[in-house]
Amino acid sequence: MTSGTALMTDQYELTMLDAALADGTADRRCTFEVFARSLPHGRRYGVVAGVPRVLEALGRFRFGDEEIAALRATGALSGRVLDHLAGLHFAGDVVGYPEGELYFPGSPILSVTGTFAECVLLETLVLSILNHDCAIASAAARMTTAAAGRRLIEMGSRRTHEEAAVAAARAAYLAGFAATSNLEAAARHGVPTTGTSAHAFTLLHDSEEEAFRAQVAALGVGTTLLVDTYDITEGIETAVRVAGPELGAVRIDSGDLGVMAQRARAQLDSLGATGTRVVLSGDLDEHAIAGLRAEPVDAYGVGTSVVTGSGAPTAGMVYKLVEVEGRPVAKRSSSKESRGGAKSAVRRHKPTGTAVEEVVHRRDAAIEVGEHDRVVPVDLVKAGEPVAGLPSLEEAREHLRRNLVAIPWEGLKLSRGEPAIPTTFVLDR
Amino acid sequence: MTSGTALMTDQYELTMLDAALADGTADRRCTFEVFARSLPHGRRYGVVAGVPRVLEALGRFRFGDEEIAALRATGALSGRVLDHLAGLHFAGDVVGYPEGELYFPGSPILSVTGTFAECVLLETLVLSILNHDCAIASAAARMTTAAAGRRLIEMGSRRTHEEAAVAAARAAYLAGFAATSNLEAAARHGVPTTGTSAHAFTLLHDSEEEAFRAQVAALGVGTTLLVDTYDITEGIETAVRVAGPELGAVRIDSGDLGVMAQRARAQLDSLGATGTRVVLSGDLDEHAIAGLRAEPVDAYGVGTSVVTGSGAPTAGMVYKLVEVEGRPVAKRSSSKESRGGAKSAVRRHKPTGTAVEEVVHRRDAAIEVGEHDRVVPVDLVKAGEPVAGLPSLEEAREHLRRNLVAIPWEGLKLSRGEPAIPTTFVLDR
Repeated sequence: MTSGTALMTDQYELTMLDAALADGTADRRCTFEVFARSLPHGRRYGVVAGVPRVLEALGRFRFGDEEIAALRATGALSGRVLDHLAGLHFAGDVVGYPEGELYFPGSPILSVTGTFAECVLLETLVLSILNHDCAIASAAARMTTAAAGRRLIEMGSRRTHEEAAVAAARAAYLAGFAATSNLEAAARHGVPTTGTSAHAFTLLHDSEEEAFRAQVAALGVGTTLLVDTYDITEGIETAVRVAGPELGAVRIDSGDLGVMAQRARAQLDSLGATGTRVVLSGDLDEHAIAGLRAEPVDAYGVGTSVVTGSGAPTAGMVYKLVEVEGRPVAKRSSSKESRGGAKSAVRRHKPTGTAVEEVVHRRDAAIEVGEHDRVVPVDLVKAGEPVAGLPSLEEAREHLRRNLVAIPWEGLKLSRGEPAIPTTFVLDR
Repeated sequence: MTSGTALMTDQYELTMLDAALADGTADRRCTFEVFARSLPHGRRYGVVAGVPRVLEALGRFRFGDEEIAALRATGALSGRVLDHLAGLHFAGDVVGYPEGELYFPGSPILSVTGTFAECVLLETLVLSILNHDCAIASAAARMTTAAAGRRLIEMGSRRTHEEAAVAAARAAYLAGFAATSNLEAAARHGVPTTGTSAHAFTLLHDSEEEAFRAQVAALGVGTTLLVDTYDITEGIETAVRVAGPELGAVRIDSGDLGVMAQRARAQLDSLGATGTRVVLSGDLDEHAIAGLRAEPVDAYGVGTSVVTGSGAPTAGMVYKLVEVEGRPVAKRSSSKESRGGAKSAVRRHKPTGTAVEEVVHRRDAAIEVGEHDRVVPVDLVKAGEPVAGLPSLEEAREHLRRNLVAIPWEGLKLSRGEPAIPTTFVLDR
């Protein structure tokens, strides 16, 4: 294991650099752009997430002795490229959509400008972070809409790679989740955590009642008791008998959750526990959450579906060379065509604040920015240094919340359809 | 970021411990078991992967000052549990299916035995690793079968979290892939790497020919030239003109790959480049690979589908308390029922070596192990120390290869169906 991020890179980036150093093209000034050709499954928007993680990873992108030794061992690289890497330092510029921003097919989400040598190496690392974090945030934002103000708890760490789990907890929080179960996400990113007990705690004890007494004694009556280890009705009765009507919440993790929520609410009310909340978990996704909207539920625990992007575990973003020495370039052999030239984007709004259109234009072309419009990309890195004052996680969360208020209401539908707003490409000079 | 793995844990594991310390149940001797209730999408087997990663992570599972401070900051935990954690060290036993083993619904993949205190905390970390790595290896093994001896290259790093990418490269190699694009997987796990160039390299140059000349000059005529940036037929012609008929390979990354492979082969042969290989990439999964079996293809580059488990990005494994102080325990309220008691498994084979049945039995019950049968779980950790001589990655790869030869041929079908062999549960004492 190396301590930096420089080897989180595909070998071909280094062999290309090797060849470009040899023929003198490595110094050509290039712009690479990150964009998604489409949104998965007819979704209506994507959510930008992971930008601070990209900047942090860029800061640790160094080829030290350890990395050079590992590269030498592959036998695929010349001394020329290994010598070059030893002194490499990204000194280029990065402009991009800020975290919490919406994106659409073709949005210029991130533009990296510098020499070919310094830009080509970042493809894998930049895409890994953005494809993961945007996939999670995009799915999580739909769940937030479906929950319609009820509390969402991310508890999917166990269903994804241990490091991806930390990033997923962060992305879900960005997208409106209230808390995570993941303690490293608290330590690393300040995400609020929650969690009280599993079935194992009840099974450890000689009876459910003993388990509940132990939990209430240690964690207080405000705790959440998990009531479905044996019989749910008996579990709720025992829970209120042990904790009293001030019990914080009951959690139900199995069965027909809608029916269970109704019964639990009625039973809790009949026992005088009218303030005790009902928390549901167990294979919930945005559609199941929406389907429970009429039921007396106070919070949802969401696991697998959020950390795996609810059917779209990767955002499908690509990192393409679009400009060389000021000249637009683009692949043109097939359906995977891309649009040449370094680009920017303006989001146009009605005077009411509703977004109506994304205009993607050549960065060096003049474009009208009206009173209610907004230039979407912001400076992220200048001459290799991260720009100061980029939004915090809390600010990005608020930015996303406002963005979702601004799109037309059809854009929030869970069904498949067109992007929430159309994108117009103005790419002639 | 903390340096260890102890916070890759769900908060409820610590609140449970808190309550169990208070009422004296934390010292009860427990066994937790990892199993999958089902295989995804009617698949016929799962592949165990990630076991050495679990053991490595367990070795770094320590609550140091940094971790304790982070936990204290959550406000959810008492001084009692924080004091306990500071001295915590897993001293229990772990028995499980070795890496490269096949598993089926209900297989006791990993059994962790020790005090409740030391076992309950490992749930999230153990499941994160196994759910991820087994999902990737299980999908990759089907691709290996579909490729029928042709070379598979894992190149999906950019489609998944940057750390998950390294683990995915390892899991794909375990499952029969020949190489990865991911350089960190080489440095960390010794996985062979490969890769030569992307479309960006061609676009960087003033012409495709100049790009090919530069690549051949730097990497030799044995390199792989990417020929689909502009027109594929012209690209192949230029490639052979520049490199000569000794050109190593051409790669095609877009278009109707079957048709393109046929045309490329014919064109290469007509140019005398009969030894030049054809490499295909671009949205390949096990079904697309199988569909190309009749075409003249030498190698496949596989990205998104392998690193996202080809539709099953998580293996769905759970970690359940099955035994307390020698007494079997199990949740019993719903469809999520589990089977109590610490278990082991024997795989029965015909004298020909074909597997016929998995017998899962109570660990403390006697079971007949015939001449051709095999006890599947092995000791992994004893009294907190990893057992010496566990299989290397290469050995696990070979173990899987033999396992896949041993199952009935229907078990290798890509279509949905029953598990390759039935599992019989013998759980009465």
